[in-house]
Amino acid sequence: MTLDEVRAFFDAELPFCRELEITCEAIALDLGVARFSYTERWTRPGGFINGGTLMALADVAVFIAMFSRSGIVPLAVTNELKINFLRPAIGRDVLAEARLRKIGRRVAFADVDLFMDGERDRIVAHASASYHLPG
Amino acid sequence: MTLDEVRAFFDAELPFCRELEITCEAIALDLGVARFSYTERWTRPGGFINGGTLMALADVAVFIAMFSRSGIVPLAVTNELKINFLRPAIGRDVLAEARLRKIGRRVAFADVDLFMDGERDRIVAHASASYHLPG
Amino acid sequence: MTLDEVRAFFDAELPFCRELEITCEAIALDLGVARFSYTERWTRPGGFINGGTLMALADVAVFIAMFSRSGIVPLAVTNELKINFLRPAIGRDVLAEARLRKIGRRVAFADVDLFMDGERDRIVAHASASYHLPG
Amino acid sequence: MTLDEVRAFFDAELPFCRELEITCEAIALDLGVARFSYTERWTRPGGFINGGTLMALADVAVFIAMFSRSGIVPLAVTNELKINFLRPAIGRDVLAEARLRKIGRRVAFADVDLFMDGERDRIVAHASASYHLPG
Repeated sequence: MTLDEVRAFFDAELPFCRELEITCEAIALDLGVARFSYTERWTRPGGFINGGTLMALADVAVFIAMFSRSGIVPLAVTNELKINFLRPAIGRDVLAEARLRKIGRRVAFADVDLFMDGERDRIVAHASASYHLPG
Repeated sequence: MTLDEVRAFFDAELPFCRELEITCEAIALDLGVARFSYTERWTRPGGFINGGTLMALADVAVFIAMFSRSGIVPLAVTNELKINFLRPAIGRDVLAEARLRKIGRRVAFADVDLFMDGERDRIVAHASASYHLPG
Repeated sequence: MTLDEVRAFFDAELPFCRELEITCEAIALDLGVARFSYTERWTRPGGFINGGTLMALADVAVFIAMFSRSGIVPLAVTNELKINFLRPAIGRDVLAEARLRKIGRRVAFADVDLFMDGERDRIVAHASASYHLPG
Repeated sequence: MTLDEVRAFFDAELPFCRELEITCEAIALDLGVARFSYTERWTRPGGFINGGTLMALADVAVFIAMFSRSGIVPLAVTNELKINFLRPAIGRDVLAEARLRKIGRRVAFADVDLFMDGERDRIVAHASASYHLPG
């Protein structure tokens, strides 16, 4: 899987990601990174980037990490996701870095660190999610 | 709290909800309901409404349910949220119905059923979330 | 499924439940109830019943609720579980009431209310979990 | 904090850990490790170590990791915990390694890898949890 292939898939099949300002940043074995490009449009009172956007970002990062083992699987769907918001996410791009921890025939699982661009050691949120791979 | 007051708050302070097609449907003591008005724009391959939209919908429903006890608290923020996707959400409006289970001085907790409009007994997802109330 | 059948299964196959003071309280369609019989032995500083015991209790309640549809499936295993502790659990029996929300060929999902005996409207914890049904 | 201090606290205040065969294995800055010493007593059909024991193990590991920053806080309590079971845990000791990701005045958060002794790269479960620090 190359980054260009993943980006082409997102452009063709997940056009809503562009509206959410979410793009694929990197893919490597067991790793997927997604970027939220900061815009005031997705903020809420206090200037916080809204939680829904960060959850979508985490979800997308897991999707990419999974592709690093499975190839592109358009019909894979999220089984469950959970996220803890740990610090304010304000005024800058956010990166979500997903690490694939297991992939079987039917299920993939990854955990995800979210951090402001340039502050990888100070996460703003932590998530984990599992995906269902179609039969 | 009246529904009109909550809607006025959303219009003024959470304009991104309109972009996500999320609106307040109902508020009652310990109860908050949010609606996603179906549009193809937020779907993904297979016609599924994308998970990020449903997570944002669940999050908003909890926000409304909390308001039923706390009044409008613009700076309350989500601490953590988790969701299980149980059945396909395709081609129709989705409602998220949050039930407030506890509210203290600092923390509120609710669980949420998500279902297709008209099919309340057959949930498409279940979520729960806690919010932090500012000091 | 009768309560006696479930209890016989627990006695024969899950002897550790007796050590945890966990027993089957009730089974009905889509419903499973488990009881923790209070003992100081499983408490921690402050007199709180320890979280591990309550997590085991929630897990067992889901197992029972699943049996109401699947019959006894000894090799079904927990996929994932999450729990929020909402109020102190001190000095009395705790009941966990699981409601089965979905069961497919391979996966079952339930949410669970935990409450002190006699205080069903004031939950001490809320959990949800999914089980994997063997092929 | 030394390992001996933590162990002395567990012996004095959390005697149920001994019954669960859970002991403190290591403590270092932002890190806590707990061990489950294998015994058939806590297994279930199929020989699996039961989920409740692994959840208690994860919970304890987070408690230890928190102590590395806060010192011993007997009355800190678990807010919420979630766990995914990824591979069978059978027939050997299990280690839970918690990494503290944030600690504020009131809340601490850690994620946890659980693995069979000697197989740190092949986790059997992943958890995360937050604790409430008393005022």
